[in-house]
Amino acid sequence: MAALAAATALTADSIALDTNKHGVSVAELQKHTSLENGVWVAINGEVYDLTEFLLRHPGGAKIILKYAGKNASTIFNKFHPKDVFEQFLTPEQHLGPLLGELQPAQDITEGEEDEARLVRIEKKPALAKIFNASDFEHICKQIIPPNAWAYYSSAADDEISLRENHYAYQRVFFNPRVLRNVTEIDLTTTMLGVRVDAPFYCSAAALAKLGQPEGELSIARGCGSENIIQMISNNASYTFDEIVDAAKPDQPQWFQLYVSENRDLNYKAIEKCNKRGIKGIFVTVDAALFGKREKDMRFHLLEDDDDDGDAGDNLSESGKILSAKDPGLTWEDIKKFKKATDLPIVLKGIQTVDDVLMAIDHEVKGVVLSNHGGRQLDFSRAPLEVLADVSKVLKEKKLEDKLEIYLDGGVRRGTDILKALCLGAKGVGLGRPFLYANSAYGQEGVEKLIQLLKLELSVDMKLLGVSKIDELGPEYLDIRNLHARHLVADLMYNSAYDPLRPPEFRK
Amino acid sequence: MAALAAATALTADSIALDTNKHGVSVAELQKHTSLENGVWVAINGEVYDLTEFLLRHPGGAKIILKYAGKNASTIFNKFHPKDVFEQFLTPEQHLGPLLGELQPAQDITEGEEDEARLVRIEKKPALAKIFNASDFEHICKQIIPPNAWAYYSSAADDEISLRENHYAYQRVFFNPRVLRNVTEIDLTTTMLGVRVDAPFYCSAAALAKLGQPEGELSIARGCGSENIIQMISNNASYTFDEIVDAAKPDQPQWFQLYVSENRDLNYKAIEKCNKRGIKGIFVTVDAALFGKREKDMRFHLLEDDDDDGDAGDNLSESGKILSAKDPGLTWEDIKKFKKATDLPIVLKGIQTVDDVLMAIDHEVKGVVLSNHGGRQLDFSRAPLEVLADVSKVLKEKKLEDKLEIYLDGGVRRGTDILKALCLGAKGVGLGRPFLYANSAYGQEGVEKLIQLLKLELSVDMKLLGVSKIDELGPEYLDIRNLHARHLVADLMYNSAYDPLRPPEFRK
Amino acid sequence: MAALAAATALTADSIALDTNKHGVSVAELQKHTSLENGVWVAINGEVYDLTEFLLRHPGGAKIILKYAGKNASTIFNKFHPKDVFEQFLTPEQHLGPLLGELQPAQDITEGEEDEARLVRIEKKPALAKIFNASDFEHICKQIIPPNAWAYYSSAADDEISLRENHYAYQRVFFNPRVLRNVTEIDLTTTMLGVRVDAPFYCSAAALAKLGQPEGELSIARGCGSENIIQMISNNASYTFDEIVDAAKPDQPQWFQLYVSENRDLNYKAIEKCNKRGIKGIFVTVDAALFGKREKDMRFHLLEDDDDDGDAGDNLSESGKILSAKDPGLTWEDIKKFKKATDLPIVLKGIQTVDDVLMAIDHEVKGVVLSNHGGRQLDFSRAPLEVLADVSKVLKEKKLEDKLEIYLDGGVRRGTDILKALCLGAKGVGLGRPFLYANSAYGQEGVEKLIQLLKLELSVDMKLLGVSKIDELGPEYLDIRNLHARHLVADLMYNSAYDPLRPPEFRK
Amino acid sequence: MAALAAATALTADSIALDTNKHGVSVAELQKHTSLENGVWVAINGEVYDLTEFLLRHPGGAKIILKYAGKNASTIFNKFHPKDVFEQFLTPEQHLGPLLGELQPAQDITEGEEDEARLVRIEKKPALAKIFNASDFEHICKQIIPPNAWAYYSSAADDEISLRENHYAYQRVFFNPRVLRNVTEIDLTTTMLGVRVDAPFYCSAAALAKLGQPEGELSIARGCGSENIIQMISNNASYTFDEIVDAAKPDQPQWFQLYVSENRDLNYKAIEKCNKRGIKGIFVTVDAALFGKREKDMRFHLLEDDDDDGDAGDNLSESGKILSAKDPGLTWEDIKKFKKATDLPIVLKGIQTVDDVLMAIDHEVKGVVLSNHGGRQLDFSRAPLEVLADVSKVLKEKKLEDKLEIYLDGGVRRGTDILKALCLGAKGVGLGRPFLYANSAYGQEGVEKLIQLLKLELSVDMKLLGVSKIDELGPEYLDIRNLHARHLVADLMYNSAYDPLRPPEFRK
Repeated sequence: MAALAAATALTADSIALDTNKHGVSVAELQKHTSLENGVWVAINGEVYDLTEFLLRHPGGAKIILKYAGKNASTIFNKFHPKDVFEQFLTPEQHLGPLLGELQPAQDITEGEEDEARLVRIEKKPALAKIFNASDFEHICKQIIPPNAWAYYSSAADDEISLRENHYAYQRVFFNPRVLRNVTEIDLTTTMLGVRVDAPFYCSAAALAKLGQPEGELSIARGCGSENIIQMISNNASYTFDEIVDAAKPDQPQWFQLYVSENRDLNYKAIEKCNKRGIKGIFVTVDAALFGKREKDMRFHLLEDDDDDGDAGDNLSESGKILSAKDPGLTWEDIKKFKKATDLPIVLKGIQTVDDVLMAIDHEVKGVVLSNHGGRQLDFSRAPLEVLADVSKVLKEKKLEDKLEIYLDGGVRRGTDILKALCLGAKGVGLGRPFLYANSAYGQEGVEKLIQLLKLELSVDMKLLGVSKIDELGPEYLDIRNLHARHLVADLMYNSAYDPLRPPEFRK
Repeated sequence: MAALAAATALTADSIALDTNKHGVSVAELQKHTSLENGVWVAINGEVYDLTEFLLRHPGGAKIILKYAGKNASTIFNKFHPKDVFEQFLTPEQHLGPLLGELQPAQDITEGEEDEARLVRIEKKPALAKIFNASDFEHICKQIIPPNAWAYYSSAADDEISLRENHYAYQRVFFNPRVLRNVTEIDLTTTMLGVRVDAPFYCSAAALAKLGQPEGELSIARGCGSENIIQMISNNASYTFDEIVDAAKPDQPQWFQLYVSENRDLNYKAIEKCNKRGIKGIFVTVDAALFGKREKDMRFHLLEDDDDDGDAGDNLSESGKILSAKDPGLTWEDIKKFKKATDLPIVLKGIQTVDDVLMAIDHEVKGVVLSNHGGRQLDFSRAPLEVLADVSKVLKEKKLEDKLEIYLDGGVRRGTDILKALCLGAKGVGLGRPFLYANSAYGQEGVEKLIQLLKLELSVDMKLLGVSKIDELGPEYLDIRNLHARHLVADLMYNSAYDPLRPPEFRK
Repeated sequence: MAALAAATALTADSIALDTNKHGVSVAELQKHTSLENGVWVAINGEVYDLTEFLLRHPGGAKIILKYAGKNASTIFNKFHPKDVFEQFLTPEQHLGPLLGELQPAQDITEGEEDEARLVRIEKKPALAKIFNASDFEHICKQIIPPNAWAYYSSAADDEISLRENHYAYQRVFFNPRVLRNVTEIDLTTTMLGVRVDAPFYCSAAALAKLGQPEGELSIARGCGSENIIQMISNNASYTFDEIVDAAKPDQPQWFQLYVSENRDLNYKAIEKCNKRGIKGIFVTVDAALFGKREKDMRFHLLEDDDDDGDAGDNLSESGKILSAKDPGLTWEDIKKFKKATDLPIVLKGIQTVDDVLMAIDHEVKGVVLSNHGGRQLDFSRAPLEVLADVSKVLKEKKLEDKLEIYLDGGVRRGTDILKALCLGAKGVGLGRPFLYANSAYGQEGVEKLIQLLKLELSVDMKLLGVSKIDELGPEYLDIRNLHARHLVADLMYNSAYDPLRPPEFRK
Repeated sequence: MAALAAATALTADSIALDTNKHGVSVAELQKHTSLENGVWVAINGEVYDLTEFLLRHPGGAKIILKYAGKNASTIFNKFHPKDVFEQFLTPEQHLGPLLGELQPAQDITEGEEDEARLVRIEKKPALAKIFNASDFEHICKQIIPPNAWAYYSSAADDEISLRENHYAYQRVFFNPRVLRNVTEIDLTTTMLGVRVDAPFYCSAAALAKLGQPEGELSIARGCGSENIIQMISNNASYTFDEIVDAAKPDQPQWFQLYVSENRDLNYKAIEKCNKRGIKGIFVTVDAALFGKREKDMRFHLLEDDDDDGDAGDNLSESGKILSAKDPGLTWEDIKKFKKATDLPIVLKGIQTVDDVLMAIDHEVKGVVLSNHGGRQLDFSRAPLEVLADVSKVLKEKKLEDKLEIYLDGGVRRGTDILKALCLGAKGVGLGRPFLYANSAYGQEGVEKLIQLLKLELSVDMKLLGVSKIDELGPEYLDIRNLHARHLVADLMYNSAYDPLRPPEFRK
């Protein structure tokens, strides 16, 4: 439910709590546990009437009903930023403070704790033993809560695009040049006009709190230490303001925007970005609805240990989630967003040459070639493949300078990043690797991940015979096999990959 | 033997039982157990003289001899629709009702029941835990009777085409478009002029009763609930009429025709289709004889636990089955069938561009590009590959509108269906997935399968940026790798696949 | 040693035993056990002085020394036809009959019998359970003596060509045609002017006795029953005359000729072919010396359980074997062989278009495209690949009718044979499958193998829409992937393959 | 640390020991164990003040601190040639002889000895059982010290290039010609004007002592016996002079030069080459710094059993090592080196056509196409691929005779060598195979490796129909698949390969 419940995390100030309300006694609260009597829930000391909201809850009505008349703070805080009700409830649905003491009810999504996992957490390898981005994934597979793993690692359908994203990099080889002075390597570059210390950024990824209590805050701090950009997820588990506050004064951050049917929410978010010094707004255009992520779906059902008939409605619930974003988003909206802000607007989730050309026509500042980490339409092409096609056409049409091209998905190595840059990308985003590094080691993990990638980039550029980012070009690559989707021998990646499993028989 | 015995399931009314016959006593029956004395068998309360039929039995003489002088109702009903004798026996070979009580003899094809399998049936996952078409296959592999599994899952020789059928889909990727209004998705389309709720149909597959007592009836009901077309197999385990009766009043159904040497049977079947409101007749043209399906062959021999010398004649028996269809079927017959009915005639089993062109010359309404699910000639090409070649030629020759193109084989996902439609198919058939869904969960399983595919189609079309079926086209695909038959990384499919095994040593 | 010892099996009458010799007593024999005193050995009742021959023995001197002064009949008969000494020894080296009784010494190549293997022989599957050529291989891997398995299954170096030979077939697919009258299928064809019942033949393969006491004799009888051609190996374990005698009066047989430095032996062999009604002489041109077959080499060393220093000289011995054939064979010899006989001369082991053109210039009757089953130069191309190139060039140059093209290597299925015929082959040879069928089941196995292939051919031709062999052509194939050497998914073949193993540590 | 510590092994005579120094007592030595008091270490009877050197130690300061005040002879001698201090210390840092007795401290890099490994050493297969180059690798994986295995076998990042180097050979097939007189095969050729007995050489590989106490000396002797060239590593574990002394009087040797920031060291080395009769100087141009070799890195950390915080600085230490070579090396240096010697200068590590053309412009005598055995930039292309591109361009530009082309990396078979020669290489280098042969069997192993390759070359040339090295050419190859990087079926190679492992959880 985690994944589903996280519909939107941002940022409205419409229903600031009315501190004048008298409040609700524990006894009163406990009477409201059904649709007939109303469904009241206490969260962080305040009582809410969720009877009407119940059916709009992206995570399903069932989970809320289980907390009717109870203190749901523990589970609420795991999945939601504290301001989430501000956009979903009316002021009347806030009933006032809880009068009296009531222990938070158990978080039923946790299930019984797996003893073996707790032991593994104890025995977690020292950070010094992490050598590459995949290592974090190996560790998380064994130590983070199963629902976090399911949510983070899952992708659409057969997860073909998920793996293709990475495999495409493995089909590109280098033409390294020698006998060039590579004493000094400069990894710095600019993205949307901001100077950063490395040509990659932390891409938006939802619900960082699932794997790490510090959530997006430790990611913000880690990126700040290493001076790379963090793109703040629209589905973060902390509030937008908390995440911006976690950054250093001049630390650059971007904001990822999911467009909802209620455009007002989006304009308010954009307004907030203007105010808080955000450096770019990345409008997600590949999420008319969420893809069919079976690893995640399967996890939620497995949890349902009574296995009763109503397990059936999980699917229809997932159907609801599937329409949580606005499938009516069009280029007209992009025009309007542009008018609403002077910040650079970038389209995240472009997957064809034609849409890049349309983006140029609409004069946006950039695109992110992305299939959402394989989480949306399975058999979407690997961004690196699309990039090769795009670069060729833009070169032919002399449009290379019209916008900045980013891409994300499947990046694990410095060499991956170099390949994308050689093909014309301005920067490369990593999503899951940041979640894994953060989940396993918090801010230190985030910093280590960035350091490792910087180290690899630095070593690899020297060995490639290139000193500066803007000297990279297609002449350093052999891409003859890029479009040949044969299997590749990346054993590390493959052993870290967690294959889909068939349904389990009952015990 | 199941597979073999099911020669034809249809529908003649020539030897309606003569109710005036006096009947046969149990004692009399039990005397007729040899070729010399005659081979009599009681089935469903009637006694038949099978002495002459013995050698014509597609399932072999041996199995009938084992039931000579006995009540063979149990095994007969497992494999045959009740009207099967009407086309194979003369009125004289029906000896009248059995006088007296005789318990049905044990079904010797069952062997000893596998305790573990019975337990697994108990522990079968709830339907809510099924997320995709392959899940049904995983479950059936563990719970349906081994002979049903062997018959359903087997394909010709090394089963290369079986897997290629699916793998071809995995070599095609999408070019998804963004920022289009996909709020409303319309999955409806027409097939042979009939409007249906989704662009796929349940293809003919024989002997549904092997895995599910409700057999083709529950399939008919499931398809009716979801308004998709069921193609009725010529080898169904219920009678044609029973299956049509199971459908709702206006529910569209097609009929698959196997042409036998006795063309009269075929014309009678066509006549019956005319009468019962069938919407299309699919003449199978890829079955001059049955392919060499070793998984199925091996199963039958393994059963033969005495392992005596006569196991040898199983092979020659399978040789007989191999000629159960008429290898003399030619285009001349197609012309005649067209004259015999106003129903659309479609050729099922076309595998080359040239034969599509001949089909157009013969003015049939459609073709099904199919290699019979890999069960006929191994190393037949995947239908999707053939479709790509066909579409190209028809477009060049401006013949796209001359007939409707269907295809079947290897379809497991909504994305598979979309790919076929983008390449010009009017609809896509699924065979085994329906058998598996039906075997594991009956009508509910069939409905769930259809719902899952509809859900996937709906999600995938939104993510592809397309709202209507007829907007799909080749511009949404990257087929550069379609003809490169390298291995693909479809782990789900591969783990569901049951590999051929070498012969076992005796215990 | 088996492989090595079998230098030549043919057929000279120069040193017919001199029956006038007095003979040698057991006591006398037992005194001659060293180079100083002479090395005498009793074989089949006669005593030979092998002192001089010792160093010429292709299987090495060591093995003979172990039998000095002993009765070596058992081991001799396992590896050699009885006339082998006629070409290697002088009349003086035959010392006369053994006077007195002496038990044959143990066959030291057997090692300790593996109990488990004997049990498996008992439990061998009934022949009725064999469905395809690979099944025989599966069984032999478990039941034939390890040295036989090592010799039969081994190929050169990394055995890449061995597997490529088969994989190439897997990269070719069919374009089956429908609605053609395929009621009657005619599998007969002619090879070198002789009519046979199927378009394949049993290729020469040495040392059939290793796996089956009846050796080449049961192969001859099996081929006779089914009217296909047997090519008699120059390294057979029975004499040429015995094998010809085993055939039926008019049964067609071919002879495979290894050219030795002593051309006289070859001309005598050709003369004998003329006399005995052989239908074709296949001169092996790909064996200047034997390839490096490590599976076989490793076996012999493993046997050497004392593991003493002299194991070292096994390699130099294998070096000797490597020059057992004449590396000086050239086209000039071919001209001379042609003059020596009216029988058709065919060159076996051609691997390039250029050499096919040279063969045409030299007016031979045919070529066998072959890499010797992968046993000679590893990374030789698959014959099917070469055939595709050859056919293209011959068609361009209008030379298709100048000679008959055969090929061998990797054939396991009727579909394989059809593919080769479609590409222009006159016939296809199978080697190992005959050895395996014969080793596991003798003559019955050979017949079963032929019947299975005929059945597959018959079924497959019907399904391909072709009635006669000479109607086959390239239009029935899709060879677009033939030259793309990616891995293929032939699970049956791969599971039967026995991978090379690293050296074992001592126990 | 082994890998790292071996910075340079050569050859300076600047600080010959001053034998007049009085010396240091054991008690005095033992007082100097900290940065404050000075860090003194006794090695081979002499005492050194390493306080200043500590931070320059490529293997890190930590390891030296552990030996402060101790006799470090054992560990020192394992990693370093005895003259290594001559280039790193000043005369003042040599404090004189150690007065009194002090047992060498334990070698802490050994860890606890693995009992099982010692047993395996005992059971090592006899040399006679080694059939190919990969066999040595199989054995070493089980018997050499883990740190030696880690250092020898490791490569950069995901070790893609490591395996690609070999796989590229597997994608090239032969066109063997027949009926040519191949009685005499001549494997001799010349390299840089020197006649050698085979067209391959022993490439430079560091730290041979790690796996074999005789180190580079037994390699020198083995190469001498078989008359092939040894390239002496700049990081050898014996001194340059010791290795040259181990060779026979006229035995040809090459020297591999790592260019350090202190060019004086390099010129001294070149001068020494002039004096000692070295036949060629191979300037390494692909090592601006060392690649990220995780197998080796991981090993060193695993050793660190206290797992304390300071494990962290291992990474920064490896950072130091990464700059142990001079990244400022350019073509200008090449010009200067050429002026400093009449010996042929060859550039080792060229990876593009363009750099070969530049090498021709600079009139060097040759290039080695190499990616340093995959140890530098991962995703560097396989040398064989580069060779094919280079040969094509040089032929077009008629520059083939301008320099000699060598290549190394991934060579395991005689067929590999032949393929490279057919594509225009003058000779082929093998690195790891020599280390493995030497580690497992010393000089005898080296000789056996060479003999096996010669045997393979000789057999393969006969089977290819070629008698002399200079008759080889591209017409003998089918390279259509060379650039298609699909997986290949080299099971032997793959089973010898030791995959990277994720970090281990603590015990």
